[in-house]
Amino acid sequence: MTVTAERETVSVGEFEFECGESIPELEIAYEAYGDFEGDNAVLVCHALTGSAHVASHPDADDATSGQARAWWDDIVGPGKAIDTTEYYVVCANVPGSCYGTTGPASTNPETGEPYGTDFPPVTVTDWTEAQRQLLDELGIPHLHAVVGGSVGGMNVLEWAKRHPDHVDRIATIAASARLDAQSLALHGIKRRAITSDPDWDGGDYYGDDHPEPTDGMALARQIGHVMYLSKASMDRKFGRRSAGREAKRTFPEEPVAAFFPYRDVESYLDYQAEKFVGRFDANAFLTMTRATENYDLASGFESDADALAAFEGQALMMSFTSDWHFTVAQAESLADSLREARVDTAHHVIESDHGHDAFLVEPENVGPPLADFLAEGVDGSAVTDTTEETDESSSESDFAPVHTSLFSP
Amino acid sequence: MTVTAERETVSVGEFEFECGESIPELEIAYEAYGDFEGDNAVLVCHALTGSAHVASHPDADDATSGQARAWWDDIVGPGKAIDTTEYYVVCANVPGSCYGTTGPASTNPETGEPYGTDFPPVTVTDWTEAQRQLLDELGIPHLHAVVGGSVGGMNVLEWAKRHPDHVDRIATIAASARLDAQSLALHGIKRRAITSDPDWDGGDYYGDDHPEPTDGMALARQIGHVMYLSKASMDRKFGRRSAGREAKRTFPEEPVAAFFPYRDVESYLDYQAEKFVGRFDANAFLTMTRATENYDLASGFESDADALAAFEGQALMMSFTSDWHFTVAQAESLADSLREARVDTAHHVIESDHGHDAFLVEPENVGPPLADFLAEGVDGSAVTDTTEETDESSSESDFAPVHTSLFSP
Repeated sequence: MTVTAERETVSVGEFEFECGESIPELEIAYEAYGDFEGDNAVLVCHALTGSAHVASHPDADDATSGQARAWWDDIVGPGKAIDTTEYYVVCANVPGSCYGTTGPASTNPETGEPYGTDFPPVTVTDWTEAQRQLLDELGIPHLHAVVGGSVGGMNVLEWAKRHPDHVDRIATIAASARLDAQSLALHGIKRRAITSDPDWDGGDYYGDDHPEPTDGMALARQIGHVMYLSKASMDRKFGRRSAGREAKRTFPEEPVAAFFPYRDVESYLDYQAEKFVGRFDANAFLTMTRATENYDLASGFESDADALAAFEGQALMMSFTSDWHFTVAQAESLADSLREARVDTAHHVIESDHGHDAFLVEPENVGPPLADFLAEGVDGSAVTDTTEETDESSSESDFAPVHTSLFSP
Repeated sequence: MTVTAERETVSVGEFEFECGESIPELEIAYEAYGDFEGDNAVLVCHALTGSAHVASHPDADDATSGQARAWWDDIVGPGKAIDTTEYYVVCANVPGSCYGTTGPASTNPETGEPYGTDFPPVTVTDWTEAQRQLLDELGIPHLHAVVGGSVGGMNVLEWAKRHPDHVDRIATIAASARLDAQSLALHGIKRRAITSDPDWDGGDYYGDDHPEPTDGMALARQIGHVMYLSKASMDRKFGRRSAGREAKRTFPEEPVAAFFPYRDVESYLDYQAEKFVGRFDANAFLTMTRATENYDLASGFESDADALAAFEGQALMMSFTSDWHFTVAQAESLADSLREARVDTAHHVIESDHGHDAFLVEPENVGPPLADFLAEGVDGSAVTDTTEETDESSSESDFAPVHTSLFSP
């Protein structure tokens, strides 16, 4: 079987957002891999700062594509967990982002200027409806599966809620039905870091003669990185060591900085911040963050279970024991709602100290249950579930105290 | 017995910091409560943004004192856990802070201007030596106990390390021998938020004609508040509710803010930020943060146990199960070092979901073991220890998995 891959932008014309506002034209950047055979389409949903570039292309050099390394290349591709020789895989950049799909940095055809803060408020519902319209353009009425990690998992849930008849299997990885208060707080602080940077300037920073709010974006990214890692992984990776290199990104410093070590963990955060400010638009970041904070699966329904009641497919939740951004307890609560909605559900918990990042950096643990779920559903051999009978050295005793004593409300 | 209380500032003259730099005069603001009887002095060490005002004064109205409400009034006072009818209690603002003791906002007598960033780098050793000099001035050669929470606990450890013969009992609450990588990261981000605020202006923001770096300070405080609370306490306290009041502190916002709720958790953080920027000097905050990041009990020794080897008194560690800033595991590691150093040690773990804040907001749990430890040492009846024999519903099974699977390196 040949595996084809395409990278394109299609217009779905005028687009009305959930808020009621419209833009005259929504362009959607997407990538597709493999051959569509009618019943083998898998939609992959990206996270907060992700793009359509989920996997490398067999016939293209990523370095020349203008995009960063494919974000889930270890999971998506020929012979990989989401096998592009089996499935027709589609990934689309969502509205409001800045990787080819129309967002705040795009030109408003009515003014000839970037939308900036005139861009409508965007919700996860809008992401989902844009994907539905894209799939209509591509001639794909039905999906075998929708898969997504982190905020992409909210996008997955919205598919099961809004288009329950259009998808057979949903898989959320390191995700939840909504952000909790701690995550809302940290996302809110990130937004404040950006909007209080004078270079943000009310969102009107476009053009060569205006600096971008790089300090605010750098701070936001650094907060994000602490959220993505775990206490244990940070200690193992950095400890209290002094950095072995110069600062990649230089923040203003007090003169006493010379007396104190520049630490490895600071160097890492400064390096990550510098990489980020060059690649992501600040207004797009605010837009994506607002959508994430706003998402609530139960919205418009009595409960999460009610919101999912019309879905008759199967569901896989995956979570990681050291993820403090989207916890095991939140995934279990979501799984319980799916069970209550009589959906065949598996909640597969992975023992890991990589924190939220595990969904990207542990393909050896994420891949097998995901592959088996796509092929065989919740009965797939590598898929485990928290409701399974376990012996005394069970996952119950391993992770339950973590969320009952520390993280549960 | 009469309980006297004094609030004073004394000069200890020229002060040489650990770095080798000196200032011509160090003034120390302190408060003292009770009557000194030769063997009943207790030094209380304050946390990052604390002051000498640890307890209310029986003969003074706090509202007229120019200082905020006493920070540990539930613990220190007549008949309270640190009973001022029994003990002579001293609390001093540390060098580099901004509550009466000389720090960056104080006037440099050589220039007539605020020190600003000319103030020397300050360490926890400097805090301790300043306290030693203050006690010399007060005629107190020996302490019955040194007690402190959070960063104040590092100050306590430094007493046992540098002046092991001068103190009989040490008690650290929600503290550790050093910050781990995650806390270093978050403190580093706080510093960056301040120094990247253009109003910080290289630290030279003093004077009526210059704005203070209030946005940076607000962001730093907000990050701090997330560190002090737990995931569970934030969920219980705020959930995802919309705020019932207007923003106390207004950050710039995108126009789409009107579409999204202003949440209770944001309102809380904005309110706390606004209170903070009016009461704390930015350079003092940077100075205190640097001292905290820099502290390492083992510095100059082979290990924590070696650093504490000369201490022959008794030690109490208290920790809280949901404290993710200073964890139970870190306190246990410290307790193990004390045991290795043959110090009579108790590590009293409190089941709590208040996070780091528990040391301030749970006096009913902190008070009894602390009172009994001061009176009777580690054998005090309310004092428990992690090495005690326990039954099957033991603290071992309650909290051990939390730190082994989530937080341990």
